[in-house]
Amino acid sequence: MVDILHRIAVEHHTTDDVYQALTTIDGLTGWWTEDTTGGTGKGEEIAFRFPQGGFDMKVLESEPGERVLWEVVGGTPEWIGTRIHWDLRQEDEWAVVLFKHEGWREPVEFMHHCSTKWASFLLSLKALIEDGKGRPAPGDVYVDNWK
Amino acid sequence: MVDILHRIAVEHHTTDDVYQALTTIDGLTGWWTEDTTGGTGKGEEIAFRFPQGGFDMKVLESEPGERVLWEVVGGTPEWIGTRIHWDLRQEDEWAVVLFKHEGWREPVEFMHHCSTKWASFLLSLKALIEDGKGRPAPGDVYVDNWK
Repeated sequence: MVDILHRIAVEHHTTDDVYQALTTIDGLTGWWTEDTTGGTGKGEEIAFRFPQGGFDMKVLESEPGERVLWEVVGGTPEWIGTRIHWDLRQEDEWAVVLFKHEGWREPVEFMHHCSTKWASFLLSLKALIEDGKGRPAPGDVYVDNWK
Repeated sequence: MVDILHRIAVEHHTTDDVYQALTTIDGLTGWWTEDTTGGTGKGEEIAFRFPQGGFDMKVLESEPGERVLWEVVGGTPEWIGTRIHWDLRQEDEWAVVLFKHEGWREPVEFMHHCSTKWASFLLSLKALIEDGKGRPAPGDVYVDNWK
């Protein structure tokens, strides 16, 4: 089992601001994909759609200002059953986000791609909160020929 | 043992162009850090310096247009003994780069940070080749409060 790990921090903001961007349709459409629908509360499912496909996430945990945990219940086969952890912590003026996409069965080439894409979307999340504008799909940063 | 994985692809360029950016001082200073010195050939050591510290890499393998392999021989304790793999492959008009920073002993928080930083530097490498301008340190993209 192999994981994708990342760390960003959002300056001059709180973990509550990050939590809002992870747990509201308005927030999620601002940094990941404009085509986001569904319920964002614990036990509900969020549908994220991209030009190339999409993912359905079940919200397993949601603790305001502290953590969010999703399980992938629909979408790309490599992602099904994997979990996405968002652990939030305040350090002075910085809202630190520890990210983990856990449970990949093999370190396939698609995992390499997803790791780089996650980084670009996390920087989109940071930009959304700090500057008011992220880069959600379909206007996202292309990292390779898989987009 | 855990690894950092990434994938980028450089459009309208060849793996030889990427190889040049990985194996010349002129290339390396254009996307990773402006303070890069040393020898870039197989068996030589490259010294990368940043405002916060630096790394010395021994070049273990260097195959034009195909692959480069570095071993970290100096710098941050967590990095010593780890290896950085650059595997290059042409796919039509795209030079695909499979990146692996292999051999972390533990998935420490610093590894999360380095994963996100590597992604931003890989996008800097892509921008250098595609657009003629990367974002090497000290003008690099800050991802968190560790910069």
